[in-house]
Amino acid sequence: EPSATIIDGKAIAQQVRQEIAAEVSKMKESVGKVPGLAVILVGTRKDSETYVRSKKKACEEVGIDSYGVNLPEDTTQDEVLNFVKKFNDDPAVHGILVQLPLPKHISEEAIVGSVCIEKDVDGFHPMNIGALAMQGRTPLFVSCTPKGCIELLVRTGVVIKGKHAVVIGRSNIVGTPAALLLQKQNATVTVVHSKTPNPAEVTRNADIVIAAVGVPELVRGDWLKPGAVVIDVGINPVEDLSTKKGYRLVGDVCYKEACQVASKITPVPGGVGPMTIAMLLSNTLESAKRAYGLVDAAP
Amino acid sequence: EPSATIIDGKAIAQQVRQEIAAEVSKMKESVGKVPGLAVILVGTRKDSETYVRSKKKACEEVGIDSYGVNLPEDTTQDEVLNFVKKFNDDPAVHGILVQLPLPKHISEEAIVGSVCIEKDVDGFHPMNIGALAMQGRTPLFVSCTPKGCIELLVRTGVVIKGKHAVVIGRSNIVGTPAALLLQKQNATVTVVHSKTPNPAEVTRNADIVIAAVGVPELVRGDWLKPGAVVIDVGINPVEDLSTKKGYRLVGDVCYKEACQVASKITPVPGGVGPMTIAMLLSNTLESAKRAYGLVDAAP
Ligand SMILES: NC(=O)C1=CN([C@@H]2O[C@H](COP(=O)(O)OP(=O)(O)OC[C@H]3O[C@@H](n4cnc5c(N)ncnc54)[C@H](OP(=O)(O)O)[C@@H]3O)[C@@H](O)[C@H]2O)C=CC1
Ligand SMILES: NC(=O)C1=CN([C@@H]2O[C@H](COP(=O)(O)OP(=O)(O)OC[C@H]3O[C@@H](n4cnc5c(N)ncnc54)[C@H](OP(=O)(O)O)[C@@H]3O)[C@@H](O)[C@H]2O)C=CC1
Repeated sequence: EPSATIIDGKAIAQQVRQEIAAEVSKMKESVGKVPGLAVILVGTRKDSETYVRSKKKACEEVGIDSYGVNLPEDTTQDEVLNFVKKFNDDPAVHGILVQLPLPKHISEEAIVGSVCIEKDVDGFHPMNIGALAMQGRTPLFVSCTPKGCIELLVRTGVVIKGKHAVVIGRSNIVGTPAALLLQKQNATVTVVHSKTPNPAEVTRNADIVIAAVGVPELVRGDWLKPGAVVIDVGINPVEDLSTKKGYRLVGDVCYKEACQVASKITPVPGGVGPMTIAMLLSNTLESAKRAYGLVDAAP
Repeated sequence: EPSATIIDGKAIAQQVRQEIAAEVSKMKESVGKVPGLAVILVGTRKDSETYVRSKKKACEEVGIDSYGVNLPEDTTQDEVLNFVKKFNDDPAVHGILVQLPLPKHISEEAIVGSVCIEKDVDGFHPMNIGALAMQGRTPLFVSCTPKGCIELLVRTGVVIKGKHAVVIGRSNIVGTPAALLLQKQNATVTVVHSKTPNPAEVTRNADIVIAAVGVPELVRGDWLKPGAVVIDVGINPVEDLSTKKGYRLVGDVCYKEACQVASKITPVPGGVGPMTIAMLLSNTLESAKRAYGLVDAAP
């Protein structure tokens, strides 16, 4: 019975982090400084707090300084803007990350747009998305999750150029930049979304599938062309009373079925997830290298 | 024998211009001002001179004031930047257009990037492309040729939502924004480019084809699904000794063959071409309306 090779995101992320740690020590030796990442958290959402904690911990492990503020839920937009400004002006900070979602009374567009583009390690600024979409331009930063998807493909030897890729989902933070990245690497790209009447049929054309939908196990085995490479971005909690927490995490792809058809596939968890933070560290390092003149151009 | 309906771009552009002329007179009545377009031409390329002349003439016909400078080939980048700045600061100018290509010693990226985004009626600024690519954002301006393609579809009653569209070509000024526009209108979009190994096969999936390649008659009849709608952006001179000029213009689509398969098709010339200038006038009008507070939001 055919069975796909599992793309071990955890191991690959670990390797990326080691490479980053080595570069950070080299930087410390050569210029006496290390990269710095500032994380702004507003409110007390449990999941956001967890993400912020793991981002800070990941920084520590590779020698990146982490700064940041945890602001109360009722912080005004102007107060948040002031913190962004402070970090924009701080030369020890090379990356600024505003943990989303923000409380409803704060405009995400205003805050994200206020991060200076040289420190937008999340790559959410429209200028970065524009540069990603355009020929002959290179964005300063590419959003972490889609960058992680491409890194998984590259590091497992998947050729992108000339392949047909289908990206399911078109969000600003995953689907759209993933599609633009694949196209920059010369794949022929189709974007499937909620208004696509025949997603299974379209997806069956793909040599490479990136699923970033947020619908548990939407992509079934018969959506896939035999031998397709599948990157499953989805992280969806589904009820499971047999577990201690009462739920388990599944992807946007029906893993069991897809394993029988795909040639390579990422598991959930342990696939794309670990890469996201690794790419955040990578973007912060890149930014610091640019700030200290250790590279001459954008990636 | 089946034969496609011809999409008469010339007639539709004429209609758009009439609508614009009516809005311009209304503006003159209500605020005592008309829109203004500034065109910057550097050098003496014959084709560029022709384009600039027809843009100015089109402005006149609808009552838009046209400004502009024709600069010598050896103008420095700083001198061009100064003219852009002057028009950026001039409240009578609502749109600034730098005729491309610029001479080699001038950076297109620097000049295009210096046009203030509120007057970027060409829609070439990365911020505008970024906003076009992103969900929940609306660019201030959409590039004229792709906007004209969509306008042709809309005005001939072609439903875009839920359709599969294939865009052949991914240039910054046509293919890429055309694909992003179709996706914003909820088509499922595939972008074909020079690294696509099987363009005919991919294109045969399309309900709507936009060809912006620059290769004469690349798209043959058998690239099309029966009933497809075909928008041919290409304008390619091919040798034809039977004509006075020694050449004639053909599109990127083999018109004769496509007519037998498509349900609707644009001719070349007389299809997309006339729409481009009409959309430039439309963008300039829109910009003036925003400047005079006659609309409350982006299109
Ligand atoms: N591994 C990681 O580090 C990360 C994982 N994620 C996970 O990835 C998933 C997607 O996240 P995100 O992009 O933020 O989600 P969004 O909800 O922002 O976007 C979902 C996209 O999927 C499309 N969609 C929804 N339903 C369907 C359907 N039935 N068929 C086809 N397309 C559909 C939507 O289309 P439309 O635009 O038409 O509405 C939309 O574009 C989630 O499970 C999330 O938890 C997210 C970020 C990081
Ligand atoms: N009607 C009007 O007003 C206008 C008409 N035009 C016309 O439209 C056409 C395209 O213009 P423009 O977008 O500026 O051209 P560009 O040369 O900038 O871009 C051409 C695109 O086509 C792709 N391509 C080239 N050869 C092939 C092939 N054999 N198969 C598939 N794709 C291919 C290229 O791919 P890759 O990226 O891989 O190189 C590129 O993305 C031209 O004929 C031009 O004259 C242009 C502007 C306005």
